[in-house]
Amino acid sequence: MAQLQRLAIAPTQIHQQQITLTPQQHHYLSRVLRLRQGDRFIAIDGKGNWLLANLAGTSAEILEQLSIETELPVTVTLMVALPKGNGFDEIVRCCTELGVAVIMPVMSDRTLLNPSPQKLERWRRIATEAAEQSERQIVPTILDPLAFSAGLSFCQEQLHEELVKNHQYICVTRRDCVNLLECLQLKVDGNSDYSQSIVIATGCEGGWTDAEVESAIAHNFQPVSLGHRILRAVTAPIVAMSLIAAATEKI
Amino acid sequence: MAQLQRLAIAPTQIHQQQITLTPQQHHYLSRVLRLRQGDRFIAIDGKGNWLLANLAGTSAEILEQLSIETELPVTVTLMVALPKGNGFDEIVRCCTELGVAVIMPVMSDRTLLNPSPQKLERWRRIATEAAEQSERQIVPTILDPLAFSAGLSFCQEQLHEELVKNHQYICVTRRDCVNLLECLQLKVDGNSDYSQSIVIATGCEGGWTDAEVESAIAHNFQPVSLGHRILRAVTAPIVAMSLIAAATEKI
Repeated sequence: MAQLQRLAIAPTQIHQQQITLTPQQHHYLSRVLRLRQGDRFIAIDGKGNWLLANLAGTSAEILEQLSIETELPVTVTLMVALPKGNGFDEIVRCCTELGVAVIMPVMSDRTLLNPSPQKLERWRRIATEAAEQSERQIVPTILDPLAFSAGLSFCQEQLHEELVKNHQYICVTRRDCVNLLECLQLKVDGNSDYSQSIVIATGCEGGWTDAEVESAIAHNFQPVSLGHRILRAVTAPIVAMSLIAAATEKI
Repeated sequence: MAQLQRLAIAPTQIHQQQITLTPQQHHYLSRVLRLRQGDRFIAIDGKGNWLLANLAGTSAEILEQLSIETELPVTVTLMVALPKGNGFDEIVRCCTELGVAVIMPVMSDRTLLNPSPQKLERWRRIATEAAEQSERQIVPTILDPLAFSAGLSFCQEQLHEELVKNHQYICVTRRDCVNLLECLQLKVDGNSDYSQSIVIATGCEGGWTDAEVESAIAHNFQPVSLGHRILRAVTAPIVAMSLIAAATEKI
């Protein structure tokens, strides 16, 4: 099974036991991966389903649904203030490997970048590739970039709307805060209902402004530390995801 | 001060203002780190004391006790099988931010890269820049690349020689191993004498061969997991350092 190639598909491509392939997907399977008629591959629908399929003409036939357990037991939303340059590429790649479910790029007071639609396409392509490489069952969702304040409201709406319990953290430097790991483990020990959802926010170069931290706190975010050193904007979300994955995942 | 190398010692090696060095420690300082008479280094006694010292004959003289705020309470040696391309740059940068003390680049069975002396210079420059940016108090030591088997022997010599307690881990995939975080915390809870030293080994693309893992186990390395997904060679050491920093650091 580990030898089979994987292909990310949309749930809407599935009709009964058939997968309708796009011309690009068919090209990828037959030309890039050099699969022949009847060869098997794994189709991942981004909703937690892994489907063993074989190539049949310009579509594919579903053989069986596979049971794969590489997803975290919590849904993690990563709210990242966009760093400068191409730093966000690395964040998307590494955090996808570490199990993030949703990445929300936000523009904070100190964000310099205003990303183009091409950037967004690129990030989604990186997420798809990283999900396949790391054997994820789900390709993370990358939301359209939005203002930090809108991001906070978005989380609050979800919090109210759903019966989902949100744990919301904002990573800060130079404050005497509890370490994120300790925080996560207090929650786990105190109440093993890690039910549902974790939101974690990390800043760009220069960090969050005081006003941003205060606003996050007003939206039920808890300030946490990622250690005694100053991390780059690219490193912080990777560290946060490392801690969340290890603290929540069963052995 | 930021340029100084560090050496783990046992408190029993301290007599008034002198540190009695073992032959191995003297060899390490003078041959491996190439310090000369009168050159300064930092001696760490595993009890939270950092001592500025200088090499004097076959012992060392204590100059002053340092106040340390951004260094980890353990000495972490990262043994990394060299990844392809420029991946090692990112490993050096991020792991320096996360508090690594020594980086040991090793050539494993699946390593493709044979680094030039220019590469080594480049990595040391990156480490210096990252140490300053992250407000570290020391610059990590980057050793000359060596074979994986030589790296294992190097660690074993240190283990036997010193009164220092080594915790040695090798990160593996596709095995039912305990997660590194759980492992670290068992050690901390069971015996808070985290005294001294952690060695952690991560593989290159394709991972370690079975023979390499068996050899590491024979050298007292414990196989550990970094989670259920397959991490890239660049991501794994960053995740490992994130967990070590968070698990060992006081708030």
